[in-house]
Amino acid sequence: MRLDGRCQTPSLGELYLPIATDLAETRRILADELTTGQEVVGRLCRHVGQFHGKLLRPGLLLLSAKACGAVRDEHHILAAVVELVHLATLVHDDLLDEADIRRRAPTVNRQWGSQQAVLMGDFLYSHAFALCSQLDSQFAAQLIGRTAITVCEGEIMQVANRGNYELSEAEYLDIIGRKTATLLETCCHLGAAYAGADQKRLDSLKQFGRSLGIAFQITDDLLDLVGDESEVGKSLGRDLGQGEPTLPVIHCLRHSPQSRRQRLLRLLAGDYPRRSRQITALLLASGSITYAQTAAREHSYRARQALDELPPSAARESLEALAEFVCSRVG
Amino acid sequence: MRLDGRCQTPSLGELYLPIATDLAETRRILADELTTGQEVVGRLCRHVGQFHGKLLRPGLLLLSAKACGAVRDEHHILAAVVELVHLATLVHDDLLDEADIRRRAPTVNRQWGSQQAVLMGDFLYSHAFALCSQLDSQFAAQLIGRTAITVCEGEIMQVANRGNYELSEAEYLDIIGRKTATLLETCCHLGAAYAGADQKRLDSLKQFGRSLGIAFQITDDLLDLVGDESEVGKSLGRDLGQGEPTLPVIHCLRHSPQSRRQRLLRLLAGDYPRRSRQITALLLASGSITYAQTAAREHSYRARQALDELPPSAARESLEALAEFVCSRVG
Repeated sequence: MRLDGRCQTPSLGELYLPIATDLAETRRILADELTTGQEVVGRLCRHVGQFHGKLLRPGLLLLSAKACGAVRDEHHILAAVVELVHLATLVHDDLLDEADIRRRAPTVNRQWGSQQAVLMGDFLYSHAFALCSQLDSQFAAQLIGRTAITVCEGEIMQVANRGNYELSEAEYLDIIGRKTATLLETCCHLGAAYAGADQKRLDSLKQFGRSLGIAFQITDDLLDLVGDESEVGKSLGRDLGQGEPTLPVIHCLRHSPQSRRQRLLRLLAGDYPRRSRQITALLLASGSITYAQTAAREHSYRARQALDELPPSAARESLEALAEFVCSRVG
Repeated sequence: MRLDGRCQTPSLGELYLPIATDLAETRRILADELTTGQEVVGRLCRHVGQFHGKLLRPGLLLLSAKACGAVRDEHHILAAVVELVHLATLVHDDLLDEADIRRRAPTVNRQWGSQQAVLMGDFLYSHAFALCSQLDSQFAAQLIGRTAITVCEGEIMQVANRGNYELSEAEYLDIIGRKTATLLETCCHLGAAYAGADQKRLDSLKQFGRSLGIAFQITDDLLDLVGDESEVGKSLGRDLGQGEPTLPVIHCLRHSPQSRRQRLLRLLAGDYPRRSRQITALLLASGSITYAQTAAREHSYRARQALDELPPSAARESLEALAEFVCSRVG
């Protein structure tokens, strides 16, 4: 869904025009990597194949490469690697969230059970690392490995803070920085580094990925609250049910008079999803939804600002538009 | 527990004497790798630290190195890597099996919930790959990546075959080959390769690890059936409860008269653990427990035979004794 009418962005297909053939090559590598002689494993792979959607991470990596120079063979492999890491986290996240729908298809846990979901996530992680280690140097493997560690730390911290409505905005930003922004930063980093970018452009693209990631996750959390499941294409409303303190909730608890704060805490402790409409109405009334939307837009703006270091190009324009895109629509 | 009195083996401490200082260095690397600034993640790491037990995989890697030449710095890192991969599979396996006890401590899923168990397994996998990518060449990272893929395939196939009492012995051996023997083979492979072993010794140590792994898993499955939880130190009896067709069950169904076959199928379909004693008694009476014990010993013998290619050494003697050890006691 579009949260409001301000972010009018072109379609992803248009944004990816500068890297259309590179994305096709990345898809081919992904399909090759997930081809297996084991029948049951093959069925799971084909199922997960449906979850490729926006290809945001390969897109960021390839556009970053193109914005700094040329896309090389290593970039195609690395774009497949970051998508595999992302698919692994999707499969495990759906399990953690007990979600039923992903890209309008049943989740792995829904269709194949939680045990196959655990194993399929591990399988995808293993493919990411195995594919990465085909490159000549260890640079990417080290970066991907350390990125995966940080993502897991962020997710562990997030689960540990469920029901913790004392969480501060800074702590929330630290968690989403780890669990979401780190991988997007790494995509831009790898794209720029393997295109031979100088330190200045490298740093600006890392900053772009990081700010974009924060904007993306704040918007994702907002969609979970106010999105339309049939439009977004995945299970929504999970955060409230799991006691996840997201930015609108944190803002409302921190900046509301005592009476509204107490009312929100009572609603949060209540039976979800019965009370979700009341919670959303309260967060709208307190200005907390608007606050989070504004925060997402600020991070998106910071992302676009970081691109000032790059020379003008179609790829740079696409990156700018992607920064608009993530705060207008996520799925 | 000891399944019978035939396999009298020295303690693991004695077997590991040729690599005592190397194991200490491996432990140091492991502790370093799992040190984190995040409090909640640190608590989980300390919890998982209790699960180091036999250090079978680091032991195999270091002894293989020593049996072929000298232990190098790379071996210490790789020994930590294979233990991290093993710990990751332990944490996820305990979750899949809904196990409560591991090395006489609560499992991660029991103490921290299934969500943290999924994430902690991912975290340990990521550390394994990140640590591996610190080495100069990609050789180990490629081998570890492909090994992890095969392990996952084996586990996915195993879960898919729960309740499939038509599974053949060859299919069972294929599954345990993937899920267990592959990693042990890789340990020996890495140990030998980084010690500069020639192709003949390399192949013989790979064969040793593979056969040892098959013997290990058959015995592990036997212990799940006839072991004593307080002695083994982990939850037992899970295979029957989950409809896992292990070797004694497969043998009994294939080689029993129709009446016993029907009785076993009725018992297997019945309420576990109420019927587990009856099942064990039936498998003992049919000679199927003995059959599986003999099979484990044959694979252990094949493992020891493969060592004939190596020159005599204390390390080779320890490997021989380890092959005895795995069919006499697993935990």
